[in-house]
Amino acid sequence: MARALEFTITHRLEGALARTGVIETPHGRIETPAFIPVGTKATLKSLTPEQLESTGAQAVLANAYHLYLRPGPQIIDNAGGLGAFMNWPRPTFTDSGGFQVMSLGAGFKKVIDMDGHDPDYKTKKEKLAHIDNDGVTFKSHLDGSYHRFTPEISMQIQHGIGADITFAFDELTTLYHDYNYQVESLEHRTHPWAVRSLAEHQRLNAERSHRPPQALFGVIQGANYEDLRRKSAQFLGAMDFDGYGLGGALEKSRIGEITRWMCEELPEDRPRHMLGISEPDDIFDCIENGADTFDCVSPARVGRNGALYTRHGRINIQRQEFKEDYRPFDETCDCYTCTHYSRAYLSHLFRAKELLANTLATIHNERFIVKLVDDIRASIADGSFFEFKEAFLHDYYSK
Amino acid sequence: MARALEFTITHRLEGALARTGVIETPHGRIETPAFIPVGTKATLKSLTPEQLESTGAQAVLANAYHLYLRPGPQIIDNAGGLGAFMNWPRPTFTDSGGFQVMSLGAGFKKVIDMDGHDPDYKTKKEKLAHIDNDGVTFKSHLDGSYHRFTPEISMQIQHGIGADITFAFDELTTLYHDYNYQVESLEHRTHPWAVRSLAEHQRLNAERSHRPPQALFGVIQGANYEDLRRKSAQFLGAMDFDGYGLGGALEKSRIGEITRWMCEELPEDRPRHMLGISEPDDIFDCIENGADTFDCVSPARVGRNGALYTRHGRINIQRQEFKEDYRPFDETCDCYTCTHYSRAYLSHLFRAKELLANTLATIHNERFIVKLVDDIRASIADGSFFEFKEAFLHDYYSK
Repeated sequence: MARALEFTITHRLEGALARTGVIETPHGRIETPAFIPVGTKATLKSLTPEQLESTGAQAVLANAYHLYLRPGPQIIDNAGGLGAFMNWPRPTFTDSGGFQVMSLGAGFKKVIDMDGHDPDYKTKKEKLAHIDNDGVTFKSHLDGSYHRFTPEISMQIQHGIGADITFAFDELTTLYHDYNYQVESLEHRTHPWAVRSLAEHQRLNAERSHRPPQALFGVIQGANYEDLRRKSAQFLGAMDFDGYGLGGALEKSRIGEITRWMCEELPEDRPRHMLGISEPDDIFDCIENGADTFDCVSPARVGRNGALYTRHGRINIQRQEFKEDYRPFDETCDCYTCTHYSRAYLSHLFRAKELLANTLATIHNERFIVKLVDDIRASIADGSFFEFKEAFLHDYYSK
Repeated sequence: MARALEFTITHRLEGALARTGVIETPHGRIETPAFIPVGTKATLKSLTPEQLESTGAQAVLANAYHLYLRPGPQIIDNAGGLGAFMNWPRPTFTDSGGFQVMSLGAGFKKVIDMDGHDPDYKTKKEKLAHIDNDGVTFKSHLDGSYHRFTPEISMQIQHGIGADITFAFDELTTLYHDYNYQVESLEHRTHPWAVRSLAEHQRLNAERSHRPPQALFGVIQGANYEDLRRKSAQFLGAMDFDGYGLGGALEKSRIGEITRWMCEELPEDRPRHMLGISEPDDIFDCIENGADTFDCVSPARVGRNGALYTRHGRINIQRQEFKEDYRPFDETCDCYTCTHYSRAYLSHLFRAKELLANTLATIHNERFIVKLVDDIRASIADGSFFEFKEAFLHDYYSK
C-alpha cells in the first residue's frame, strides 16, 4: 500500500529547530510551516470553500466529535469523504474527538496563563465525561444522550470521515492535574491508546483500500513536565506514525520550551502539528522549536465578534471612529475584504448584525494568520527568521 | 442635464401588455422583465456582491428607511453612493421608506388573501406611525426614538443614498381601509406628495450635479378600486417621472387585473416596477399585464428558513429523506449551490445551524427567481409566453 503521507524537509534554520517542508497527501501538498483553519462541522463558519481558498489556506481541520454527533460519519463516508462532502478539494485533517469529549468542563484551555485557578474543574468535568483506562463516556452537548469513545471508535469515526490526516485518541489532561496524575495518564491511557489507535488505523486502511490511504499522527502529552514530554515523545516517536500531534494544555510562557523538548526527541522526518494555537507569539515560538503545522478556531471566532487582526494587534471594527472611515481596514492587506470594502461598510455590517459581517471578518483574519505563517516560512528559507520574528512581535504587541 | 434613465422596448407580446426592454442607468443596463433582489441594509443577507452577481441579478434594491436609521445617508453619500458603499457596480434602486414607516402594524402585507381580517390593524398602526397630510411621524424600530418623513425628506435621504432609481414618497394604505379613505389618501397625500417628491428630486439632481443623475418613479395607489387605480395612473402618468411604481396592497387573486388597469393608463415608454412580489403566479400575472421589474425579500428570507424553490414548488431542505441524499438539490439548476453541493450537505448545514446554509440557500432561491424571469423575457421575445406560463404554473402548483 502506498504511504498516506510523504514529508520532505526543504530548509533548516541554523540555531533552532525550525524547518520548512512539504507534506504530500492524496489530496495535494501542504507547504510547511502552515496554518490550518478549522472547519469544525465540515464548514468554516460563514465561508464557502472558494472564499477559504482565497485566504491562502492549504488545508482544513474538522472535528470528529461534532461530525460524529451530526451528520454522523456514515453520511460523510457515503458522500466520498470529508473533502467531497464539503466541496474542499485540498488536504483535510480531523482531530480524534478527545479534546471535545473531555474539555466540556473548566481548565481545558489549550494555552493557559497560570495566574488563575479554577477549583471546580474536577466536579465540572466529572459531570460531563467519565474517563477510564479503556475510553471515555460522555454526554452529547446536543441532546444529553450518553456516548462512548475508545481509541478504536475514534479511528472508526475518523476513517468514516476520511480526512487525509487523523490523530490518535489520547487523554486530555489539564495543568491542574498533578504530576502523579500525568504519569498515570501517559502510562495507562495516552500511550496504550496510541498503540490501539495505530493498530485500528492500520486495520482500517487495509480494509478500506477503495479509499485513499489516511495518515495517523500520534499525540504527545505530558503537560508542563520535561521528563514526561520527552518520555512521551520517545515512546510515540518509536512507533510507525506518519507524524505527531503536540497535545495537551501548557503554560503560555513556556510554549517554546515545551515544544522543543518534544521535537528534540521526535524523528526529524515526520511532520509535527501543534494542536489549537493561533496567537502570533505562540506561532513563532512553536515554529522556532520544531512545529510544522497548527490549527485554531480563534481567527474565525474573534472575527465574528468584530476583532480583526492588524500588524499592531487586534482592533475591534465597531470602534466609533470607523463609522466614517472610508479607507480599507488594512491598506497593506491583500485579502478580499481589505481590497473591496471600507472600514465604514464593515462597521455598518457589524452594527446592523448583517451575516456578511461574519464572512468579511473571517476572510481577513484567516488571511492574516495564513500570511503570517507564509512569511515565517519564507524567513526560514532565506535565514531572516529571527529578524522577522523580532520586528513582527515588536509591532504586534507594542500598540 | 442627461436623462437619468433611458428605456427602450424591444418586443411586445401580442394579446397582452407584456413587453421586453432595456433600462439604461448610469451604472449599466437592466434587461426587462427583471427580478431585482433586495439588499435591505446595503447587503443581500449572507451574500457577497459576487455571489449575488452569480445568480444573474442585474440590480439590487435597498431600503431608505433602514439605511436612514443606520448608517445614515450621509455616510453612504460620503462613500460615493450605495453601489460604491456595498461594492455592487451595477444598477441600484431604493424605495421611499414609506412602506417601512407605515407598515410596522397589521394588514400591510403586499399581496393579501382576503379570507382573514385583522380587526386590530388600526390601533396597532396608530401606535407606530402617525400620518398627516404633510408626512408621517414614526418610531424607530431600533431604539423607539421619533422621526418624521415627508416627501422632501424621503428624497433627500434617497439622494444621499444615491441609487440609480428612486421612488416617490406615498401613503401606503391597506385593503382594510374603505373607499372613502382611499380617495382621501390619493387626493390629500399620495398625489400631492408625488408632486412634492418630483420637485425636490429635480432640485436635488440639479444641486448634486457632481453625482450621476438619479431617476424617480412615481408610485400609483388605489387599492382594489379600478376607478382609483386608473385615476392615479392618469394623474402620475401626466407628470415627468422616469418610470412608475405599482404600489399598495392588493388582493392576490386580482393582481393581474389591477396591474392592467394601471398599465393601460400609463405612458408606454416608461418602465413599471411592481413593488414587493416574487411568487411565480404573481410574477406571470404582473408581467402579462405590463410590469417590467419587481423586487422582493422573499426568496432570500424563505431560503434562510430552508425552503428552496423547485419547478414543483418550494421544498424544505430539512426533510428527513434529504439527510442521505447525495444528489444536487435540483439537478436542472445551474446555480453555485446545485452545482457544488449535495442535498445531504445542505441538510447537514441547516440542521447544524451553520452560517453557510443561509448563503447556499439564498444563492439557489435568487437564481431560481431571476432565471424564471429571464425565461419569461425569452418567451415574450419568441412569442411562447402563454405556453410557457401554462406549463410552468401547472408544474409549480401541482405538487
